[in-house]
Amino acid sequence: MVQLLAQFVTHYYSTFDADRKNLAPLYRDTSMLTFQSDQVLGASAITEKLAGLPFQKVVHKYDRTDAQPTPNGILIVVAGQLLVDDGEQPLSYTQTFLLAQDGSGSYYVQNDVFNLVVF
Amino acid sequence: MVQLLAQFVTHYYSTFDADRKNLAPLYRDTSMLTFQSDQVLGASAITEKLAGLPFQKVVHKYDRTDAQPTPNGILIVVAGQLLVDDGEQPLSYTQTFLLAQDGSGSYYVQNDVFNLVVF
Repeated sequence: MVQLLAQFVTHYYSTFDADRKNLAPLYRDTSMLTFQSDQVLGASAITEKLAGLPFQKVVHKYDRTDAQPTPNGILIVVAGQLLVDDGEQPLSYTQTFLLAQDGSGSYYVQNDVFNLVVF
Repeated sequence: MVQLLAQFVTHYYSTFDADRKNLAPLYRDTSMLTFQSDQVLGASAITEKLAGLPFQKVVHKYDRTDAQPTPNGILIVVAGQLLVDDGEQPLSYTQTFLLAQDGSGSYYVQNDVFNLVVF
């Protein structure tokens, strides 16, 4: 699980930072995203939401990742910082993923909750 | 789901703040807690861990709760602040719960990840 966790987190944020439209294959039609209280359902709407965020460049750094097995997948909690559009002030965030396995055994993001941390 | 969410969060933190040993019935033998990177398995060990935390009094305030249905339960993400032992400086925290239903339809905490937010 530790290896899968590291692979997933690395893949997710490197894809996000390179071209976040390419995150689509990580979601399915039943996937849910709560992004700063906005609720979005399904891979297509989620990708549209992420692609439409009002910044061009973003770099995620994650300080902490915790993971636990669940009856049908893996729960991952990330705490980190992100920097948008060459800004100098990083924003702290937390993101919770619930990964599930599809029929072919591939993991996908079933649930995703993203929040900026307000100081 | 909204009502269940509000009931659970209110019940969890009011119980925690009154006498946290009484949280035991919310967990099961398969439940997992990650508390500041310490991993604990099972209702009994989780209750012992919570009861043994080095403070007498604690008050939780939660600013934000997000919830999503999952294939077998409910994912809840809380962001809030806590004050221990009449201190004046609140500590920010995030806590993620994955609730599952047992055979009788009662919800319990299957997964629990608690982190203080470091500024």
